[in-house]
Amino acid sequence: MQSKASLPVIRRLPKYYRYLSNMKNNGIKKVSSSELARIMGTTASQVRQDFNCFGGFGQQGIGYNVDTLLHEISCLLFGDEGEKLPTILIGTGRLGTAVSSFLIRDTNGYKLLAAFDKNPALVGQTVNGIPIHSVDDLEEFCAREHPVVAVLCVPRDGAGELASSLVGLGFKGFWNFSHYDLSVAFPDVIVENVHLGDSLMSLGYRLRNE
Amino acid sequence: MQSKASLPVIRRLPKYYRYLSNMKNNGIKKVSSSELARIMGTTASQVRQDFNCFGGFGQQGIGYNVDTLLHEISCLLFGDEGEKLPTILIGTGRLGTAVSSFLIRDTNGYKLLAAFDKNPALVGQTVNGIPIHSVDDLEEFCAREHPVVAVLCVPRDGAGELASSLVGLGFKGFWNFSHYDLSVAFPDVIVENVHLGDSLMSLGYRLRNE
Repeated sequence: MQSKASLPVIRRLPKYYRYLSNMKNNGIKKVSSSELARIMGTTASQVRQDFNCFGGFGQQGIGYNVDTLLHEISCLLFGDEGEKLPTILIGTGRLGTAVSSFLIRDTNGYKLLAAFDKNPALVGQTVNGIPIHSVDDLEEFCAREHPVVAVLCVPRDGAGELASSLVGLGFKGFWNFSHYDLSVAFPDVIVENVHLGDSLMSLGYRLRNE
Repeated sequence: MQSKASLPVIRRLPKYYRYLSNMKNNGIKKVSSSELARIMGTTASQVRQDFNCFGGFGQQGIGYNVDTLLHEISCLLFGDEGEKLPTILIGTGRLGTAVSSFLIRDTNGYKLLAAFDKNPALVGQTVNGIPIHSVDDLEEFCAREHPVVAVLCVPRDGAGELASSLVGLGFKGFWNFSHYDLSVAFPDVIVENVHLGDSLMSLGYRLRNE
């Protein structure tokens, strides 16, 4: 059932989650697909189609129960209690430090086990309370702790080699902030790219040409 | 001519830019659309279609000149020399600090004029060499310096009100890291959203369900 969802639908799930969380916090109990569509900037038909990818979530006409809908979407996004994805961060510069604060939040379905850096001055320190190890200890750490998600906050140089060794060590998913396009080299791993520089360039193009 | 480009095409321009920069650095003079397609993870026909949106950039059959192509794409992305987009950063926490390092790079077509924060302890300090002002001075600063791009690294609470006043102050473009969906409330401004939490949730969904 779940495999029916396309990537654009999957990418809208977090947005539904955020809006529904706000509604719940504001004491709202029921919401119609047209009201959800208005907030999402889409159409009621799109909302219903999105939800149908996951089994429907409720009945048309009487609207959706906010609590139930939020619970269903939370289960899809975060899995069941206790099945957090064991995760490591590689690169603890300014960006890695900022990013780590997203990973240590309780509710996101990840468990940040450790951070790694190649700078000896940082090894032994912590980032947001998480110990920083040497990248030289990566293989041994992975054999012991079996992380499946790697967050890459490293420069482009060396990112390809690093990614290749991580795929070899059994990592299944990457949150990739490096400028190395992992998904081209390794089409079978699951990658979410955050190319901040690309986003900034696209904005500049649109401001100059639209 | 330039208005022909759709958003997905625009979003691929930075990727072309990055790959061509690497080629130039590696001394490569000529590249075919099929070679570019291989590196981009797309098809030669897509590459040619993309380039046709901007007037073509070269002749099929003999390949593209890397220098010329890189120059043409740079002009599209960064404008001409001396027309940098005057920009401010709002929110100088960990994320804002990390993000500011992207804005002060020489080659990206932006000029970061100032940063703003509502925390009095930060006002008067600097972030990456850029002075931090109080958000109370925003209106006066804008009347004097006329920035057109705002980078929002603020929490969701208050982001809506802030965005509304910035649109009123004449800002044309937003690089938005807040969880407030600017483009829904202000459909006429140009927004690049970087929803890091959403990206992390999508990754989790795909790892659990694909």
